[in-house]
Amino acid sequence: MQLIDGKLKKEEIIKEISAEAIEFKNKFGRSPHLAAILVGNDGASETYVAHKVKACEQANFDSTLIRYDENISEEELLNKIKEINNNSNIDGLIVQLPIPKHISEQKVIETIDPKKDVDGFHPTNVGRMLIGLPSYISATPAGIMELFKRYKIETSGKHCVVIGRSNIVGKPMSVLMGQKTYPGDSTVTLCHSRTKDIKSITLQADILIVALGQAEFLTADMVKEGTVVIDVGITRVKSDKTKSGWKLKGDVKFDEVASKCSFITPVPGGVGPMTIVSLLKNTLLAAKKEIYF
Amino acid sequence: MQLIDGKLKKEEIIKEISAEAIEFKNKFGRSPHLAAILVGNDGASETYVAHKVKACEQANFDSTLIRYDENISEEELLNKIKEINNNSNIDGLIVQLPIPKHISEQKVIETIDPKKDVDGFHPTNVGRMLIGLPSYISATPAGIMELFKRYKIETSGKHCVVIGRSNIVGKPMSVLMGQKTYPGDSTVTLCHSRTKDIKSITLQADILIVALGQAEFLTADMVKEGTVVIDVGITRVKSDKTKSGWKLKGDVKFDEVASKCSFITPVPGGVGPMTIVSLLKNTLLAAKKEIYF
Repeated sequence: MQLIDGKLKKEEIIKEISAEAIEFKNKFGRSPHLAAILVGNDGASETYVAHKVKACEQANFDSTLIRYDENISEEELLNKIKEINNNSNIDGLIVQLPIPKHISEQKVIETIDPKKDVDGFHPTNVGRMLIGLPSYISATPAGIMELFKRYKIETSGKHCVVIGRSNIVGKPMSVLMGQKTYPGDSTVTLCHSRTKDIKSITLQADILIVALGQAEFLTADMVKEGTVVIDVGITRVKSDKTKSGWKLKGDVKFDEVASKCSFITPVPGGVGPMTIVSLLKNTLLAAKKEIYF
Repeated sequence: MQLIDGKLKKEEIIKEISAEAIEFKNKFGRSPHLAAILVGNDGASETYVAHKVKACEQANFDSTLIRYDENISEEELLNKIKEINNNSNIDGLIVQLPIPKHISEQKVIETIDPKKDVDGFHPTNVGRMLIGLPSYISATPAGIMELFKRYKIETSGKHCVVIGRSNIVGKPMSVLMGQKTYPGDSTVTLCHSRTKDIKSITLQADILIVALGQAEFLTADMVKEGTVVIDVGITRVKSDKTKSGWKLKGDVKFDEVASKCSFITPVPGGVGPMTIVSLLKNTLLAAKKEIYF
């Protein structure tokens, strides 16, 4: 069994991106530039955005953080987005979700210029992905694809089972793994809450991507020997073994599943750290105009 | 075994759409209006477009056919598309594919306003479909979904196996069947040229959608009792039993598979006739502004 070390890969890749960012600056006189909009004071969102800003620093990117009070009007937010769309010094733009309920999340997503949509949430990017055209892939799926590449995991002709059909993980993962490319070319089965006898399906999987958000859902009896297991779940559960009284659990019962796997991602330290890498990679692609030109 | 009669359903649905078109005209003083652009003189394309124009007449729609010589420049074609995008009397626009090689098909598709893209080929519509937002679904997948509805075929919790990963059939079908709605809510497996031991997968299927374009690929030994079989293939093969010397074959070996099925589509007369229904339905949706408003 080989552990897929997302934390280690993250550090490696940020160094690579950083070198590319310096090269970019030498060529174009400015650094790749990410703008992030944060509305309100949600604690988790504050943390996520702070991580993103810090990663930009590490990667020699410029970043701009724009903060709004939670009472900002939808119109004002959309106008800011349009202003950034037209600012040629900013390559990528993200709006940290969730946003307050009086603002339409979908309107916000669709107002971002697809060319700057480095979160890959805009329907145009989602559609281009499905068609197989160059596009910004959203952070978690792109991070998982990167791990397959870095660990040279074979995917062609394998049976990949994806559990969970969210718009940001399950659905795009199922699409990407079926595309005629590497990583991809897998036979893909997408399972979800309505799936019957899920164990009979997971037992067929050569690659299992578990993203349903239910702590320790996948147990050893559901996995055959030699499977690649990617655990996307992250749930905070009570624990009397930690100082904080909490522990992070994945969707996979790691202790019993790991020994059966050829590769497995831990939680934390597996898929999670890769999401920030995806964001930086997309911003670099945007700066270099490699997706849209 | 029940035969799914696409030809019959087509006639039924065109009558329904026709009544809605009359209602629309009474309300808005004009009929739903489809514009079709045909470039060059390809025989098959001529036939397809003629069928579409005829279907518009049957459904009380207005239609405009715009013909260009195969030497038309890309710029001139794109300008015509933009002109129609801005013409508020035209609800839907299709460009009959294929187009001559000196013109970029993708540019043509992406120049059509997503709001008028009743073929459902624009990335924005494809992306909205994947996200689960209202969108124009392309003709064949939409036609199959309509058949499921009309024959009240249960799909929730069923294992749906899709064979073939084309952008216009296999991929969208696999997406639609996995969505949290009816028809949908199936566990979906997408198979393709790289799939190993495909028979072991097709034997698990409650619903089989076969769209690989290989005559009589699916044989009786690949299907379990009671399966719903949707045959999307249509291949012209030599025959000494017909006057023309040709016969149309589906991807399913109908004679031996049919008796094992709960439902099956014939070729011809199954999925084929439904595609034109989808186009009319999308045009009506466009006229009523039910997708984008």
